[in-house]
Amino acid sequence: MTNGPISLGQDPFDALLSEKARAVEDALDKLLPRPDGAEARLIEAMRYAALGSGKRIRAFLVLAAAEVFHVSSAAALRVAASVECLHTYALVHDDLPAIDDDDIRRGKPALHLAFDEATALLAGDALLAFAFELLSAPETHADGFVRSELVLELARASGPRGLAGGQMIDVTAEPDDLNIGQFMRLQRLKVGTIFAFCCEAGAIMARASNYHRHALQAFAHDMAMAYQMSDDLLAVTRVAANDASQPNMRAAREGLSGRTTFLGLMGADRARDNSWA
Amino acid sequence: MTNGPISLGQDPFDALLSEKARAVEDALDKLLPRPDGAEARLIEAMRYAALGSGKRIRAFLVLAAAEVFHVSSAAALRVAASVECLHTYALVHDDLPAIDDDDIRRGKPALHLAFDEATALLAGDALLAFAFELLSAPETHADGFVRSELVLELARASGPRGLAGGQMIDVTAEPDDLNIGQFMRLQRLKVGTIFAFCCEAGAIMARASNYHRHALQAFAHDMAMAYQMSDDLLAVTRVAANDASQPNMRAAREGLSGRTTFLGLMGADRARDNSWA
Repeated sequence: MTNGPISLGQDPFDALLSEKARAVEDALDKLLPRPDGAEARLIEAMRYAALGSGKRIRAFLVLAAAEVFHVSSAAALRVAASVECLHTYALVHDDLPAIDDDDIRRGKPALHLAFDEATALLAGDALLAFAFELLSAPETHADGFVRSELVLELARASGPRGLAGGQMIDVTAEPDDLNIGQFMRLQRLKVGTIFAFCCEAGAIMARASNYHRHALQAFAHDMAMAYQMSDDLLAVTRVAANDASQPNMRAAREGLSGRTTFLGLMGADRARDNSWA
Repeated sequence: MTNGPISLGQDPFDALLSEKARAVEDALDKLLPRPDGAEARLIEAMRYAALGSGKRIRAFLVLAAAEVFHVSSAAALRVAASVECLHTYALVHDDLPAIDDDDIRRGKPALHLAFDEATALLAGDALLAFAFELLSAPETHADGFVRSELVLELARASGPRGLAGGQMIDVTAEPDDLNIGQFMRLQRLKVGTIFAFCCEAGAIMARASNYHRHALQAFAHDMAMAYQMSDDLLAVTRVAANDASQPNMRAAREGLSGRTTFLGLMGADRARDNSWA
């Protein structure tokens, strides 16, 4: 078994991904508040979690879809930064002892270990609120309708019928509880709704037709499934190769046992056939 | 010492407050999602925390200010419900062991005890996201600019330079750390910014001038200080009277020791002179 069939692509795509990730990193650095005042610790924590690493897949989707619709890159970068703030909040709260109790995130100590639990909790909250501040500010789009539509879609994607709902199922479901249909719905809520927002945002900013918005949503949901299957396959491959260079082996081990994955439900061969390899 | 000088008012005001609280309760009941699907537990937790009690002071401010500007009560109730979702999220996360570790909230077990910590964390997150979903939906206002402006102001009020920032200071500051100016800034972030949003929302919905918006903001910040001082005074009065009927004596005790309060900084007499008695 090699990494070949399930790698995300060769050099040109990786280079594009890196270029966009750098642009998003710069945007986040400029847009996030600077530590100042008695609340400086909170802002340091927000920046610790949001800056410095991350694949920025969600931001990449925002930027790519926005280019299709010729949306200005400055506006698209604000939306991309907003999605990364939202994604970071979800990781920070997911890593807390009450949920996954993870020690390492993006190759460095999880926020609640680098700071403390109270700060991680509040920094996650603040990143979630800040994601909506970014979207709703006039700098994101001149048209208030577009801004409110972006907020509405991201709020739905992250609320009880989106990310938060998916996390709830993930926390409560035992590995044997879920059949393939229920597991796909979990992935749809936990990953698909945010991917759908990322792909749809460019169409919203360009005031494209509902036809285009729905087509992008459907594409995004399929891609989110493929992405999750690839992630599972990579985790298994890494564990099989005993690749100690991976900073977060806990996530990798979950690919083999303890947690429901696409692999457990459909087997590696079917997952690979269905993934975007 | 009696409750007289610091009660919030006599019958007519109390009756109005109760009437508005019932209207907000009805609106929240209708607007919050219904438990359904594998994520039902999350929605049950959101409803447990948000429904059934609460003074609804913030909602009252939204409704009162909206009436001044002749905003439709249906629209104002959606904004009032949004603010109560946001306020409930803050209480739920504040009660978690990592922050205040409170057992009782609004006369019943805190959410993390009635459910569990993971559910309380996620339900708080979902309530925060849902607050923005309510504001940005077309049912709240026909004008997208108004909706995005409501979102922007609530996001700012709840983020690192608002509620979350105030909570961070509250968590980290030792009682002797803060002078009166620093303590007033803490209260301004933690209570004042949300009160300001509540009072300003009616003006935003009516597209009133910036003059009116700023006047309402200034009024709200003053009132938030008076509200907090009254709260401190009531806590001391209850502890002095050893009033065991108060469900949350922990909060009351803090009025006397351990935590920075207006009373500790300026003394009860000055606080009473400055409060809205």
